[in-house]
Amino acid sequence: MTVRIGVIGTGMIGRDHTRRIQQVLSGARVVALSDYDPAAARAVQAGLVPEAQVFERSEDLVASDQVDAVLVCSTGATHEPYVLAAIAAGKPVFCEKPLATTAAGADRIVRAEVDFGKRLVQVGFMRRYDAGYRMLKQVVDTEIGAPLMVHAAHRNQSVPESYATPMAIHDTLIHEIDVLRWLLDDDYVSAQVVFPRRTRHSHAGLADPQLVLLETKKGVRIDVEIFVNCRYGYDIQCQIVGEEGLANLPEPMAITLRKDARLQNALLVDWKERFIDSYDVELADFIAAAARGTAVGPSSWDGYVAAITSDACVEAQESGKIVPISLPKRPALYDQG
Amino acid sequence: MTVRIGVIGTGMIGRDHTRRIQQVLSGARVVALSDYDPAAARAVQAGLVPEAQVFERSEDLVASDQVDAVLVCSTGATHEPYVLAAIAAGKPVFCEKPLATTAAGADRIVRAEVDFGKRLVQVGFMRRYDAGYRMLKQVVDTEIGAPLMVHAAHRNQSVPESYATPMAIHDTLIHEIDVLRWLLDDDYVSAQVVFPRRTRHSHAGLADPQLVLLETKKGVRIDVEIFVNCRYGYDIQCQIVGEEGLANLPEPMAITLRKDARLQNALLVDWKERFIDSYDVELADFIAAAARGTAVGPSSWDGYVAAITSDACVEAQESGKIVPISLPKRPALYDQG
Amino acid sequence: MTVRIGVIGTGMIGRDHTRRIQQVLSGARVVALSDYDPAAARAVQAGLVPEAQVFERSEDLVASDQVDAVLVCSTGATHEPYVLAAIAAGKPVFCEKPLATTAAGADRIVRAEVDFGKRLVQVGFMRRYDAGYRMLKQVVDTEIGAPLMVHAAHRNQSVPESYATPMAIHDTLIHEIDVLRWLLDDDYVSAQVVFPRRTRHSHAGLADPQLVLLETKKGVRIDVEIFVNCRYGYDIQCQIVGEEGLANLPEPMAITLRKDARLQNALLVDWKERFIDSYDVELADFIAAAARGTAVGPSSWDGYVAAITSDACVEAQESGKIVPISLPKRPALYDQG
Amino acid sequence: MTVRIGVIGTGMIGRDHTRRIQQVLSGARVVALSDYDPAAARAVQAGLVPEAQVFERSEDLVASDQVDAVLVCSTGATHEPYVLAAIAAGKPVFCEKPLATTAAGADRIVRAEVDFGKRLVQVGFMRRYDAGYRMLKQVVDTEIGAPLMVHAAHRNQSVPESYATPMAIHDTLIHEIDVLRWLLDDDYVSAQVVFPRRTRHSHAGLADPQLVLLETKKGVRIDVEIFVNCRYGYDIQCQIVGEEGLANLPEPMAITLRKDARLQNALLVDWKERFIDSYDVELADFIAAAARGTAVGPSSWDGYVAAITSDACVEAQESGKIVPISLPKRPALYDQG
Repeated sequence: MTVRIGVIGTGMIGRDHTRRIQQVLSGARVVALSDYDPAAARAVQAGLVPEAQVFERSEDLVASDQVDAVLVCSTGATHEPYVLAAIAAGKPVFCEKPLATTAAGADRIVRAEVDFGKRLVQVGFMRRYDAGYRMLKQVVDTEIGAPLMVHAAHRNQSVPESYATPMAIHDTLIHEIDVLRWLLDDDYVSAQVVFPRRTRHSHAGLADPQLVLLETKKGVRIDVEIFVNCRYGYDIQCQIVGEEGLANLPEPMAITLRKDARLQNALLVDWKERFIDSYDVELADFIAAAARGTAVGPSSWDGYVAAITSDACVEAQESGKIVPISLPKRPALYDQG
Repeated sequence: MTVRIGVIGTGMIGRDHTRRIQQVLSGARVVALSDYDPAAARAVQAGLVPEAQVFERSEDLVASDQVDAVLVCSTGATHEPYVLAAIAAGKPVFCEKPLATTAAGADRIVRAEVDFGKRLVQVGFMRRYDAGYRMLKQVVDTEIGAPLMVHAAHRNQSVPESYATPMAIHDTLIHEIDVLRWLLDDDYVSAQVVFPRRTRHSHAGLADPQLVLLETKKGVRIDVEIFVNCRYGYDIQCQIVGEEGLANLPEPMAITLRKDARLQNALLVDWKERFIDSYDVELADFIAAAARGTAVGPSSWDGYVAAITSDACVEAQESGKIVPISLPKRPALYDQG
Repeated sequence: MTVRIGVIGTGMIGRDHTRRIQQVLSGARVVALSDYDPAAARAVQAGLVPEAQVFERSEDLVASDQVDAVLVCSTGATHEPYVLAAIAAGKPVFCEKPLATTAAGADRIVRAEVDFGKRLVQVGFMRRYDAGYRMLKQVVDTEIGAPLMVHAAHRNQSVPESYATPMAIHDTLIHEIDVLRWLLDDDYVSAQVVFPRRTRHSHAGLADPQLVLLETKKGVRIDVEIFVNCRYGYDIQCQIVGEEGLANLPEPMAITLRKDARLQNALLVDWKERFIDSYDVELADFIAAAARGTAVGPSSWDGYVAAITSDACVEAQESGKIVPISLPKRPALYDQG
Repeated sequence: MTVRIGVIGTGMIGRDHTRRIQQVLSGARVVALSDYDPAAARAVQAGLVPEAQVFERSEDLVASDQVDAVLVCSTGATHEPYVLAAIAAGKPVFCEKPLATTAAGADRIVRAEVDFGKRLVQVGFMRRYDAGYRMLKQVVDTEIGAPLMVHAAHRNQSVPESYATPMAIHDTLIHEIDVLRWLLDDDYVSAQVVFPRRTRHSHAGLADPQLVLLETKKGVRIDVEIFVNCRYGYDIQCQIVGEEGLANLPEPMAITLRKDARLQNALLVDWKERFIDSYDVELADFIAAAARGTAVGPSSWDGYVAAITSDACVEAQESGKIVPISLPKRPALYDQG
């Protein structure tokens, strides 16, 4: 079957997912679009999917019997109601991060899905679909023994003035929070944040860099450097130290060039390039599961845990203390990873 | 539009392309299958495309008005007649290498396509679609000045007893012959082959390794090591030395592991893994062009030049001499790369 | 002039320095030996320096008018009195680490040297003489802007049962404490230690690994992983993150080997190999300065600061708290690095 | 004993060796100097060895009973007579390359040394003392099985106008000729030279780059790229392909820097830095053997073979043909490497 998809939110990411479904991936087509600004939805329709229907109200898109599954790509504050509507309609829904803007909101989604009794929600934590992280997970699972420590870094060339200190958690660390849980098959029990000397390339509202220290149930100690005005490039590092060995996330593939007295590789500067292939893979996963009426991959439970952990990290930013993190019991629905 | 594709030859590669079109790529579906052994075609039909029609005769598949474009994945000796039939029918055709088993056969295809007046043929030289070679081409075109030398290697862990000395050219070097012409935008003028000490891991009918020396019109000197019982892995190396710098083909992405007193990366051992992504890209290119009634990428001219060059290399294997290579004038149809 | 050296302590390191002075380096010769066990001193005499005099009492060696400069290679508890004796005699003295077993003892040496009015003491912090660290210092000083963070690791394959938790500071971290101060031209203001999950390869008296977090006056945040049963090799890592870029300590030179489906480099397993060349360089530095009647390189002040910092780290191990570190004012004698 | 050394030729290399013996190495001192320009010798005397005697005639330096061993660092054409004089005097002699300017001259030295009956000559092929090549030799001897091929490159940033085509052999390839024989424990049987497209950065008298193809007795095929206006740096590459695996000469140690959107290492640009440490090691080897009245390391036989091979390579440059190389039987004196 071909999965008929409705896309809510036709900004950069919604438009890109539409293109992906129409022009790259097998098994689905976009049949419906909606946006806060209907003209934006119509522009995407005209450019990519003339045969799709534009809905004035996203609620109507979710409810339409022409729509088998939903992509939520709208602004963060609207994710919760649209996801809840999709669950109410029994339709698989792919939701860009964050699942909700509060842990309470994410919890409401978890409860609704548990009540429905089947997984319907996939959260857009695309790193789990990155070829490098997948290689790393396989090595962590088979080669290095029990993980003991993780040394990670998340670096951007620069960020705009609007990026303030807590966004280092909500917009940046959120990816490490999810992907490290997945890599380690573990959960967090405490968070601490320390602030190194501030780079002169930062601005008034942003303490940059930051060093986040996480502790897991199994005792793994994680340090994540967040440095979003690092100047030199977009760089994601992850090193897992295990009882029997140590593994590093691969560098993105690059040409080794000998020129100008340098042995050199180009580094990425644009974050959009780093995980571009993983967007294809996560949506293919969504389409394949939606064709079976369900969802796989990062779940609403994962979105909820990320929200709780993020809140603790922000508290740790503010207090300078070691902040405990406690989670409710995981519903059985989410036991299969 | 959705391109309706007929697949001739349902062995390993034909089956894999069928899966690719049905399950991975957008824009096409397989509607027809044929094979020398119709039971093989029916097995693929049953497993992957129940709705496809199985033809007893491949000629009928080519002629069917249900088929917009053809994939030729049958045994090498049958490529020429099926490609000629597709050209006669005015249908885009993707032909796995070799385009024909003789240069004369490839020439007949070129003439037919030129007479038709539009490109219809894409040859399955997938390396041009590999992300690493594409990065390398960009660097060669922009960073290192005029190319002067190429140092390349093509290594397999081992080959079966059936692999004899000339197959190092026809089955192995053929890929370097094509991809280096494309990287350099150049053609060959001579070939020489020297035989190093034979590895004890070779067998009676195979001189392994071999070193092929090629010279191009622009004066670039190329050395290609072919070593098909190298034991350690499947390894494709390519280094371009230019007037201003030097660029290397990237290694396949791998986890760096510290374990057992070794800093180590796994190397590929299976050739099928090395270019697996490029099969997706080359077929997507074929589908997109076929939707416009034409073909792009490696052309029948490229297949013809590869055949002429291969013949010269085999002659150089046998004679120990430097064998000149001369090409007829390239028809204008192929001027756009 | 040829510097006439007396060596106190003829165990492994004393014997090795004797060989170095006699057989490798220019500008000095060993003229006197002493050891707690005079037979040991006589054995070194017989094997390496027949013309040297063996002293029963090390104090007599220091006082001898045949001796221009002294090497203290005896057991740690004896360092302080021998160094003080050398200062009293106005003779340059090279002292293996630790300078003294307590901060108070190191302070006494500092005061004696300040009273003497000229540098006479070099402490055996050999990493400052390692080619890799020297390259790193140059890059830190010129290429990466203000340092903001350091990520370091100190890993041994394994340690004996006698190695208990505090030794991770006194025997292991002590090197990072000194070399990072030197790299950053900075001092420490606080220390924290966290304990990850313990490796199953550790033993009862040792929490392994440990993560030490240091903060400097300039606000640099340092994390040092100490993992002394890491199994895979002896591995020293150091990454400096600056405002304009990031630099890594080089890996020791190794052959890249392709074999057995691995791209692999041998890692060191024996710590003695890692800095073996730097012993030559530090002693050459000592000899050159001793010929001028003074000392250069790591000073007694550096030894004193290392002792204070170590004490704070051990307190942090025990308390789990962030322990402040405060230093007295540095005497002007030590202002020139 | 301290070996008393006389240095003939006080240009750059003679002066540097004098400094090395006086200030770095143990076991020797320079007691005599001579130069075509006695003022040059007196300048080195004044700056480095006031106590040394300056001889007007180098023959007198060789004959002086104050001189135990001789370093020949004068211009190439004078090497043969000074080495012969040292042999006649029974004194160990270190001779910078070339041993003689003709194969016949080198042969005369071999015959004189054989007649003397003991090795006295060490030729300045310093690469055998480079840490990287030594690591490579160990791996070649133990890890990769029988060598089958060598891919090597010798690249300089640029050369002056005085550097003409044959100097690519006599001044540049000469090092690969010696070090590859040593690595492989083999001799050459033929040479061929091909000329790629000439770089625009070359000049009228120099065909640059060149590709030299050598064949050994054991059947190993060697390709050496010589590219002396490569622009990007001084770069020595060597890859040995064996029956069981493949090994590469290490890159010189360098800091990995992330800056300006590049992952980058500085490359060497000055050839003098590349093997600077190996000069120390080769002279230490000379001094140690000279103290025993003999010589070790690269022998006059090695210098003679290098001369014969160079001559064949120059003939191959001129003729474009494959030139056979044949050697007389090696005298037993040189059987021990």
